[in-house]
Amino acid sequence: MLVIEDFGYKVIIGHGVLGKLVDALNPGASSVCIVADERVYSIHGQKLISCLPETMRVEKITFPPGEAGKTRQTKEFIEDTMLGAGLDRDTNVLSFGGGVTSDLAGFVAGTYMRGIQWTSVPTSLLAAVDASLGGKTGVDTKYGKNLVGMIHQPRAVLIDVDLLSTLPAGEVENGLAEMVKHAVLADRSYLSSLVRAGPMFTSDPVHSVDLIAESVKIKAIFAAHDIHDHGTRRILNFGHTIGHALELATGYGISHGRAVSIGMCAELWAAVISGLFESADLEYVCQALLNLGLPVSLPKGVSPEEILQAMTMDKKRANGRIFISLPRGMGKPYANMERPVVVVQEDTVLSALEKVAK
Amino acid sequence: MLVIEDFGYKVIIGHGVLGKLVDALNPGASSVCIVADERVYSIHGQKLISCLPETMRVEKITFPPGEAGKTRQTKEFIEDTMLGAGLDRDTNVLSFGGGVTSDLAGFVAGTYMRGIQWTSVPTSLLAAVDASLGGKTGVDTKYGKNLVGMIHQPRAVLIDVDLLSTLPAGEVENGLAEMVKHAVLADRSYLSSLVRAGPMFTSDPVHSVDLIAESVKIKAIFAAHDIHDHGTRRILNFGHTIGHALELATGYGISHGRAVSIGMCAELWAAVISGLFESADLEYVCQALLNLGLPVSLPKGVSPEEILQAMTMDKKRANGRIFISLPRGMGKPYANMERPVVVVQEDTVLSALEKVAK
Repeated sequence: MLVIEDFGYKVIIGHGVLGKLVDALNPGASSVCIVADERVYSIHGQKLISCLPETMRVEKITFPPGEAGKTRQTKEFIEDTMLGAGLDRDTNVLSFGGGVTSDLAGFVAGTYMRGIQWTSVPTSLLAAVDASLGGKTGVDTKYGKNLVGMIHQPRAVLIDVDLLSTLPAGEVENGLAEMVKHAVLADRSYLSSLVRAGPMFTSDPVHSVDLIAESVKIKAIFAAHDIHDHGTRRILNFGHTIGHALELATGYGISHGRAVSIGMCAELWAAVISGLFESADLEYVCQALLNLGLPVSLPKGVSPEEILQAMTMDKKRANGRIFISLPRGMGKPYANMERPVVVVQEDTVLSALEKVAK
Repeated sequence: MLVIEDFGYKVIIGHGVLGKLVDALNPGASSVCIVADERVYSIHGQKLISCLPETMRVEKITFPPGEAGKTRQTKEFIEDTMLGAGLDRDTNVLSFGGGVTSDLAGFVAGTYMRGIQWTSVPTSLLAAVDASLGGKTGVDTKYGKNLVGMIHQPRAVLIDVDLLSTLPAGEVENGLAEMVKHAVLADRSYLSSLVRAGPMFTSDPVHSVDLIAESVKIKAIFAAHDIHDHGTRRILNFGHTIGHALELATGYGISHGRAVSIGMCAELWAAVISGLFESADLEYVCQALLNLGLPVSLPKGVSPEEILQAMTMDKKRANGRIFISLPRGMGKPYANMERPVVVVQEDTVLSALEKVAK
């Protein structure tokens, strides 16, 4: 069992750490309100309940799985269910699920009676290494993802790797892409470790406590001291500007992990063209992604022009210039950590996209 | 013009301070989004617009006036209008109105793209001396008032007393009751000043810059260092536990100010019965309220039992005990500032209510 405190609260990682659940709750909690999607609750719900004392008041609120439910309406449904049950300010919200669940449950906790405590138990690799860390919460609107939300830190995050054993392969990919991102930003040797562990890791992330812990630590380097996302934290958008445009251009027909993988390659090409990144390192990263089963080129039928077009719908573009979070070399996120976002001209982005077109 | 910085941001009070509006906005703002109800905007909108530079992008979002519109639906309407207009994270929300508007606009700003800056220009006395100060924001649900919200501090509050000249008498009452509350909690001489200024004040609050400033300073004493409402700030609920029950019992057929006035008298009776407050001081406060045109006894047809019943719907009651924020004498909010909430037995509350019954 590993305990990482870099975020200002405990992130506990290991086998069976769900057994520590009671210690991760607010000691003064009058009750616990589990928030989970129906799929996760049907698989792991009984295990979770068995870790809570029988004397504790426990409410359970479930909703249909999937990003489509990450809306203000679902937030309202959860709030009204809590209010109807008479839950007070001393309630501890318990987020139990992937990124959609922690975004929703954390946001509900952040605004319930002007803010109550919450604890996060991620059940996907993406949530474990990224979404459940750093306090970003929110919901989607028809205008885009995560446009309404807030920063609300959990009081603890419990990463029980045994819960990750039931993940479908696509879910593992989503987390792996973020782990590679962390490696590129902070630590070349971590990328080598990921590649070495690759086949074992993708078949069963249960055996990878140390690799997950490393990713948590790297995220903390950038996110823990910039909770409002004005400075260093923005470098964590690396791979996501083009990745997000690719998701939009395909109508979310590609997984987030695969989109970010291709996005990282394209953005590194933009960095190489701009003289910020060594082409040998770019090749190393692309090869690592391939070895981990992640794609490095645009899917068939998606053109560079379409991706560029999709970027006009993104808040990171203004007046023909595109803002991209680019590292300046392996493990060198940016020479000046306070300015991790680089302005790139559209034609540079187009050239980079052509490099990753099939 | 007075500038009070006790909250950690500037509260500017005076005649014509709307002229300082540009200085109160975020210097890096890409645009300003005015949020106001239709009534306030129709009266003062042009004056506000004339204080903004012509070169600045200004969006305006209005909604029907009244507490009934302080809902998640109105919040969503404002958010979607902002998103549809393409407003980014560098937008400065400008709340222009009474307490309903600042609660809504501040909450929208707190969750728009995970939090953007806002500036508050109160146009009611209640908002000037209470609602716009301290960063409490939120909306109502069918389960009660302010049950969903957050603390989000404005970057500045501009109290232009000239905007208060068009207030109906009922609106002045709402603010006055909170000013009396501040006086009871912190400063006997301030209560005398209020009574002396009474007739002039109620006919036209425009002449009362110093009295408004004093109330702002007193609120800061309790609220500024307890932004999350766990300690000293709770004393500001004085008068509101019974006042809120009275609002509920009458189906909001009584103004907030009149309900709080009666609530303060009843709660002080509970304090006298409990040996926490001198009966001579209680008489002094009641006489002051009467002199200011505020009521000190229950409206006809409302019984003490009904009020007690309404308290069971309030989150401040548990297991036959009632939690009330009580001062321990004029200007002595509580001997131990960290524990401003007193547990009172139901029969004490009933006896106190009988004292204020007609």
